[in-house]
Amino acid sequence: MQLSSSDTLAWKGLMNNIKNMKATWGDSVAIEVVVHGPGIGLLMKEKTNQLDMIIDFKSKGVVFNVCENTLADRKISKESIIPEAGFVKSAVVEIILKQEQGWTYIKSGF
Amino acid sequence: MQLSSSDTLAWKGLMNNIKNMKATWGDSVAIEVVVHGPGIGLLMKEKTNQLDMIIDFKSKGVVFNVCENTLADRKISKESIIPEAGFVKSAVVEIILKQEQGWTYIKSGF
Amino acid sequence: MQLSSSDTLAWKGLMNNIKNMKATWGDSVAIEVVVHGPGIGLLMKEKTNQLDMIIDFKSKGVVFNVCENTLADRKISKESIIPEAGFVKSAVVEIILKQEQGWTYIKSGF
Repeated sequence: MQLSSSDTLAWKGLMNNIKNMKATWGDSVAIEVVVHGPGIGLLMKEKTNQLDMIIDFKSKGVVFNVCENTLADRKISKESIIPEAGFVKSAVVEIILKQEQGWTYIKSGF
Repeated sequence: MQLSSSDTLAWKGLMNNIKNMKATWGDSVAIEVVVHGPGIGLLMKEKTNQLDMIIDFKSKGVVFNVCENTLADRKISKESIIPEAGFVKSAVVEIILKQEQGWTYIKSGF
Repeated sequence: MQLSSSDTLAWKGLMNNIKNMKATWGDSVAIEVVVHGPGIGLLMKEKTNQLDMIIDFKSKGVVFNVCENTLADRKISKESIIPEAGFVKSAVVEIILKQEQGWTYIKSGF
């Protein structure tokens, strides 16, 4: 799932999406969230309002990744990112690689 | 096709997309529109401004589905939904299932 | 890649996406940008603010296409479009055809 929106309603919607996927498929679904551009706030210590959900979903196997290109473009340090998140070099490259491996793509936001 | 926007220009754009697909492929294309989140207005009796198009497209085989999770989250009754629409339990689950069956994904909106 | 946004930050983000794909895969990646709806400004002479990047990417094989249905809907002439761009009859039809040929889909914007 791709998130590039800074809209906190989009963040809430993303959490609802994950909740619904987990309710349907439980541990048999693999979910990776990749944030980039203005969406990076979801995984920033000072900006996220979804930390409890993220911690809970991470404990259930959901992966949250930050785009390192976005960090560089916006001069955001890795220390600003919540420890529950991982990193990918480029969000768009990650999304393409995963689709080529057969993953399904969902773009979050409105 | 996924719609999660409340923007009526996005609704109009979605109708144009369907018109263009039908103009190209006629009855040989299967189209399903899944609305969720703020996009639900497109299929609400009191909010839609595209009812004529929806009725016409439905008569030509286009399927319009509402996310039941969105209904629950927003305390919207099924009676508020236009009779031309059907229901799916979760928009995101429906979109993933259809992609896994080989359907092509288009995210509407801007 | 699909662009339907008039937001110049989305245009800049799209250019960053292409830059990152080219940095990762060089000439071995095929990239086509299809603009429609409000996204058409990216490829209009009087509206684009990304012409240098577009010229550079085009020289490296990236394809930029405009939706002719959008031109007709908005009464925009082909002369208003930058000469680096090509045309497709319908953006949504082009995106579906490319996905059916195995291309990966990325929706730009937030």
